[in-house]
Amino acid sequence: MRILGIDPGLQTTGFGVIDADGHTLRYVASGTISTKKTERGNLPARLKVLFDGIGEIAQRYQPDASAVEIVFVNVNPQATLLLGQARGACLTALVANQLSVAEYTALQMKRAVAGHGQAAKAQVQEMVKRLLDLPGLPGSDAADALGIAITHAHVGSSMARLSEAAGLARSTSGMYRQGRTR
Amino acid sequence: MRILGIDPGLQTTGFGVIDADGHTLRYVASGTISTKKTERGNLPARLKVLFDGIGEIAQRYQPDASAVEIVFVNVNPQATLLLGQARGACLTALVANQLSVAEYTALQMKRAVAGHGQAAKAQVQEMVKRLLDLPGLPGSDAADALGIAITHAHVGSSMARLSEAAGLARSTSGMYRQGRTR
Repeated sequence: MRILGIDPGLQTTGFGVIDADGHTLRYVASGTISTKKTERGNLPARLKVLFDGIGEIAQRYQPDASAVEIVFVNVNPQATLLLGQARGACLTALVANQLSVAEYTALQMKRAVAGHGQAAKAQVQEMVKRLLDLPGLPGSDAADALGIAITHAHVGSSMARLSEAAGLARSTSGMYRQGRTR
Repeated sequence: MRILGIDPGLQTTGFGVIDADGHTLRYVASGTISTKKTERGNLPARLKVLFDGIGEIAQRYQPDASAVEIVFVNVNPQATLLLGQARGACLTALVANQLSVAEYTALQMKRAVAGHGQAAKAQVQEMVKRLLDLPGLPGSDAADALGIAITHAHVGSSMARLSEAAGLARSTSGMYRQGRTR
């Protein structure tokens, strides 16, 4: 399964593409979509850069699924509104390209990648480098996006294992359901 | 010029299409895009309903330009984030359909439609009905969207008058520039 991870932001949106085959992960691509060259006050134009950028990535790498970081409200309400609009453009681009979209918090991503939710940015970058056997450290936004894709791969393989377990022991009826809602 | 006005919201997005020929306005269509039937927790699916709905309207009515209400931050930051994402999906749908996007505040819209910024919702509905010679009151969301389209039509005709004035009196160099920043 090929997974596209997205770390949404108005100035910089990170993306990361990985192939996941059970526990085996393979790096495909990563980078950022930047709206810094677009006129600052022209929000529709900046959202178009994000929408078109994600569309290009989806067309080029043909992912089977996508996963997006859940963003949190900022102390500055105006910044929250802008971030919300950027995330809205990213989600829209994914669904417009017929991709399923899973959502994970930064906490879930840090747990999946670094083993604990308090991991610093540098630790996430280092762990993503190791897990995907990269020659160098990925940039911070790309690392977060790759981390989100890795998180989705982990959840996918856990679900597959649970399905197997449910198949092997159908009589223990609570088990599968319990696993799914975990 | 055919103008598509949008009043963005996550549950209900209002739309209104008008034809503007100088000061003459003609009603074309209006209504709402509702995401109420979409699973509440599935934000990507709800944004897709907005994106696809606006795409359909753009294809059906072929507007020349669009205008969107500027939303404000809510007392509830989580609601602000959700509204931001809905507005992001709407803006993205418009630019993805190659439409120019102008943005106006509710205050600007109320001034353009009702003559003062303190107009109540019912007054906006009544004025939109009169200005577009509608047989009945439009719904509140559709009325706001039509009001935004009317606001854009007014600005467009002011700009045209100012261009003419600038052409007639090219030597009074400050005039056109002053008019544009009004």
